[in-house]
Amino acid sequence: MNFIEKKILSDGVIEPGHILKINNFLNQQIEPDVVNFIAQELKKHFEGVEITKILTIEISGIPIATILGHILNLPVVFARKQEVPQTTADIYSSQAFSFTHKQQNKVYVPASFLSSTDKILIVDDFLANGEASRALIDIVNQAGATVAGIGVAVEKGFMKGGKELRAEGYRVESVAIIDEMDYETQTIRFREQ
Amino acid sequence: MNFIEKKILSDGVIEPGHILKINNFLNQQIEPDVVNFIAQELKKHFEGVEITKILTIEISGIPIATILGHILNLPVVFARKQEVPQTTADIYSSQAFSFTHKQQNKVYVPASFLSSTDKILIVDDFLANGEASRALIDIVNQAGATVAGIGVAVEKGFMKGGKELRAEGYRVESVAIIDEMDYETQTIRFREQ
Repeated sequence: MNFIEKKILSDGVIEPGHILKINNFLNQQIEPDVVNFIAQELKKHFEGVEITKILTIEISGIPIATILGHILNLPVVFARKQEVPQTTADIYSSQAFSFTHKQQNKVYVPASFLSSTDKILIVDDFLANGEASRALIDIVNQAGATVAGIGVAVEKGFMKGGKELRAEGYRVESVAIIDEMDYETQTIRFREQ
Repeated sequence: MNFIEKKILSDGVIEPGHILKINNFLNQQIEPDVVNFIAQELKKHFEGVEITKILTIEISGIPIATILGHILNLPVVFARKQEVPQTTADIYSSQAFSFTHKQQNKVYVPASFLSSTDKILIVDDFLANGEASRALIDIVNQAGATVAGIGVAVEKGFMKGGKELRAEGYRVESVAIIDEMDYETQTIRFREQ
């Protein structure tokens, strides 16, 4: 079991509806060793892959993406949910449904931040049904750029996102994959990787 | 002139109403050398000051706080604007008016993330009238913790925040202080530090 898996078992809280709360060490309080471990693992997973920019989505993806950008010396862009500009000429935008928050969000990136020659690594904290990844892929496609891969901290392997994205040929790498998660017994089973 | 000051001059955009847009290198696109420079400068400014935790406010403070936490090996907490819990027993909350976005935000931190023994370094991207810093100070006080200092990337020195906070005895350190900023001529004068 790796460091993040142990951390999830010791400090994560399973809530009803397949929600895993890890805001005490990654999502609102960020422990430096946890975010550094995740970034270092993602670096290893994508060793040898050409990446020119990291793309994430506010808010919880930002710390992971920032540390990974620091380690790899790459710029980081995050898609914003709020304050979507009224004029849409100079932005790429898409829709993302948040499984955790049960709401549809319009997200956008200024067009000037992505170019057609970019090889984009999409980074996020969670991968469940893949809605956030889909929105970011959509934005990358609008820019005519290439998706180099999708790196996430915690994948809910019992949900469809990772499976579908891999079937479509995307390289999806997760630091931890949860295959089973039970609210009643507060137990989690991780996939062997 | 330091690296961030040069960057502001070359890539920042002055908008009407004393708004400085730096979202192309710090606030939505994050250049790794910029955020690293800011964090290293803040580290130097607060050398010798006892700090146990870094506190910032979503969204733009998060990258700076995360890199500083990485460098100093300290946990980072950010006050959230969205999804303020209905029950307020276990949270510390306050109000912050955003000068940039002209809106009042309720922000909160779960009470379990701050303890009375914490020495908190407040970090943010901008310091204008000090509203965000005031909200974070309020939250630190609710926890019975101590404000070790306030570190910001860009202070608008012609506005009252930094002056008032220093007069009250807070140690405020800014990587760049703008003393004058003019929309018509798109010119900026930095304070010698």
